[in-house]
Amino acid sequence: MSDVISKEESETQVGLSDDTIHEIEDALRSGYADAVIHTVSELSAADSAELLAKVNDDDRERLLKKHGAAFDPDVFAELAPELRKQYIATVPSKQVAAIVSELDSDDALDIIENLDPDIQQDIIRNLSAKLRVTLEEGLSFPEDSAGRLMQREFVAIPQFWTVGKTIDYLRAAAGDLPDSFFDIFVISPTYHIVGEIPLSRIIRTPRSEKLENLTLGDIHTIPAVMDQEEVARIFQREDLLSAPVVDEESRLIGVITIDDVVDVIHEEAQEDILRLGGVEKGDLYHAVLSTTGFRFRWLFLNLLTAILASVVISFFDATIEEIVALAILMPIVASMGGNAGTQALTVAVRALATRELSETNALRVIGKETIVGTLNGAAFAVIMGVIAALWFGNNVLGAVIAAAMVVTLIVAGLCGAAIPVILHRSGSDPAISSTVLLTTVTDIVGFFVFLGLAALFLV
Amino acid sequence: MSDVISKEESETQVGLSDDTIHEIEDALRSGYADAVIHTVSELSAADSAELLAKVNDDDRERLLKKHGAAFDPDVFAELAPELRKQYIATVPSKQVAAIVSELDSDDALDIIENLDPDIQQDIIRNLSAKLRVTLEEGLSFPEDSAGRLMQREFVAIPQFWTVGKTIDYLRAAAGDLPDSFFDIFVISPTYHIVGEIPLSRIIRTPRSEKLENLTLGDIHTIPAVMDQEEVARIFQREDLLSAPVVDEESRLIGVITIDDVVDVIHEEAQEDILRLGGVEKGDLYHAVLSTTGFRFRWLFLNLLTAILASVVISFFDATIEEIVALAILMPIVASMGGNAGTQALTVAVRALATRELSETNALRVIGKETIVGTLNGAAFAVIMGVIAALWFGNNVLGAVIAAAMVVTLIVAGLCGAAIPVILHRSGSDPAISSTVLLTTVTDIVGFFVFLGLAALFLV
Repeated sequence: MSDVISKEESETQVGLSDDTIHEIEDALRSGYADAVIHTVSELSAADSAELLAKVNDDDRERLLKKHGAAFDPDVFAELAPELRKQYIATVPSKQVAAIVSELDSDDALDIIENLDPDIQQDIIRNLSAKLRVTLEEGLSFPEDSAGRLMQREFVAIPQFWTVGKTIDYLRAAAGDLPDSFFDIFVISPTYHIVGEIPLSRIIRTPRSEKLENLTLGDIHTIPAVMDQEEVARIFQREDLLSAPVVDEESRLIGVITIDDVVDVIHEEAQEDILRLGGVEKGDLYHAVLSTTGFRFRWLFLNLLTAILASVVISFFDATIEEIVALAILMPIVASMGGNAGTQALTVAVRALATRELSETNALRVIGKETIVGTLNGAAFAVIMGVIAALWFGNNVLGAVIAAAMVVTLIVAGLCGAAIPVILHRSGSDPAISSTVLLTTVTDIVGFFVFLGLAALFLV
Repeated sequence: MSDVISKEESETQVGLSDDTIHEIEDALRSGYADAVIHTVSELSAADSAELLAKVNDDDRERLLKKHGAAFDPDVFAELAPELRKQYIATVPSKQVAAIVSELDSDDALDIIENLDPDIQQDIIRNLSAKLRVTLEEGLSFPEDSAGRLMQREFVAIPQFWTVGKTIDYLRAAAGDLPDSFFDIFVISPTYHIVGEIPLSRIIRTPRSEKLENLTLGDIHTIPAVMDQEEVARIFQREDLLSAPVVDEESRLIGVITIDDVVDVIHEEAQEDILRLGGVEKGDLYHAVLSTTGFRFRWLFLNLLTAILASVVISFFDATIEEIVALAILMPIVASMGGNAGTQALTVAVRALATRELSETNALRVIGKETIVGTLNGAAFAVIMGVIAALWFGNNVLGAVIAAAMVVTLIVAGLCGAAIPVILHRSGSDPAISSTVLLTTVTDIVGFFVFLGLAALFLV
């Protein structure tokens, strides 16, 4: 059984097949309502969300307007936030409230937290008093904080209980327990957390054992205001499955489970890739005009830096007029600088995000990048110097482009690593602005050194 | 309580502080062995791994050679694979075997699977017969497959048992159970899986209840040969905590838990970012020469495309000689094309990785990108046309760059989305080769259209 077969097999196993989507599209467009409802009602929440994400806007509207009732409320928790917003904008608040009421408190919060305050209030007004209080409390925590991520349902047991008493209690309280939990929190009478016990530890222990003897004391309590990225990092570092969330007085107020954290990890990595590429989160689901608008800003910034580089070129117009080979070769220097710089930048941005790069090793990493830039600069100086000298039959031109290549690649390595570090230290997100700053530097240095040396030695 | 405070707080909470690292470095360099051992032995495995990753090469060697015994074997499971390899290359196989023997079977496999076959065999020879068989079986599965990821330790119970009998069995077998587990698998007499039961369901249910009444039938069995990316996708889609792994005869042979999957998700997203930036996995930890070598290949490819673009420019040398403004402006067109294309490419590469982009919506996404390219092309045509006309006092030049901008950005949008889709369909990883292909296209189109139109209308 080869690797290739396994890839093929698995491609067909996960998620909704394109064939099923086509089937539903056909039924929808031919007006076979029963067929649509039948197929949709057999889909899992994740599959339904995928269906809604992949059909075109018209089909999505038809599906939601005519067959909205066929979808499980959980589908809305799985839906991409952008599509969810689009949907919520088109239906009455009462209908949204009805969906929200059916969800777990953390999913409900996840849905309403991203809405405009007006719509948010409209929906909250239509909820039960209990859910309203829960959501308003959730909204009181900072955006992207542990408080927003946590579930309020957890199992907390006094430390002096035995395993037997705990199991009896859980059996009696079965209906009031969270759907699923992996740890029991052991608390003091003042609701301060003493430790936690994995269920697999409880279940293998005799009834007479005291909980305090089973308690793992080395717990990682999460302050409710901690940023979710930080929470994800702790979970990853310590291989946690769940962690207790505490308020300012260190009292247990909720629990974060790993399934919530998986989404955060995925989201954050996604965000970094998109930011480095100059696009917004959710770009795939934005309408044409809003995508165009978001992208325009990034491209406009890029236009300014490109014009700046052109101004540098314009200083040397007389030289270029005399030796047109310079115009032909100069993009090569700038392009190599941009690419070498991007390599260093990519490594630095990621290492900063994962905390593999910090004060301790920042100078060493910048130093390494500068050396790598020097070595590759030297290598490409030789290659490009020879090519240019042969191409234009001019050895001095070869020497000039060789020198420019070394200088540009050294600067690219140095700045590629240093710019993200400096931005990070100053509190900016290095994934957002590093690229523009870097290409500005490499373009200007590349053009200036190449054309400047040419002006000195070739004219 | 502001967001800023929470960020500050959390920065100091997770991981090893730079101060602690400095302390250990100082002690190490001053030869205070006791201080080093004392501080190191108090670190968690994750912290120790961070320490080893962040100190310089000399300090790392000193730490491992002199104080290797102070580190817990788990540290080596947490260490970046590149550093692990470096370490393993310097110590006798027996010593590595001793460390590997202390680890869980999945961590042990993770360590030896990435080694050269010679070293691998050397280490395996020094292991106990039992571990040797386990690891050799693990190695028989394809790289990056579920079989490599799974633990062989799991709890499987016959379906006709009751909750009470199950708990009694777990208490009696306590020593032989996996350290931690969240689900019990319910099996038929032939070891085929019937369903699974979360522990939180068992523990809340009366002793007399039959397991078959608690069993969740909707389980997601993972074939051992499934690719780990696919496994991660299933876990994310279905919010799983663990999933049974089965062999070709659908017999239960292991279990994958979410903590293993978190690492896969993280690794895969990391890989995509790095590939888009033209660097290798583990680049941060590679020595200068090996980093230089890896990066050279990518830059060399880029040099070829840059030379290709220069050849296009060289066709128009006479035109440039006449109107040097062309040389000044032409990098702007190419740069805008490259950036607009990268935006479309980034979205497409990510959406392909997450399966949000497939056959069904591929044409629609490519269409959208082409429209976005057209709209932003028109916007920047106006802006840049006016700037060029004013800058050089030449309206035709303004019209030429405007036209070139529209064409280039349309092509950039179209190709930015289409290239990854085509590469994916042909079985290549779009994150690796899309960027080079795209910039080749945008550079050539940008230069050719701008200079070609200029040759037609300006000379």
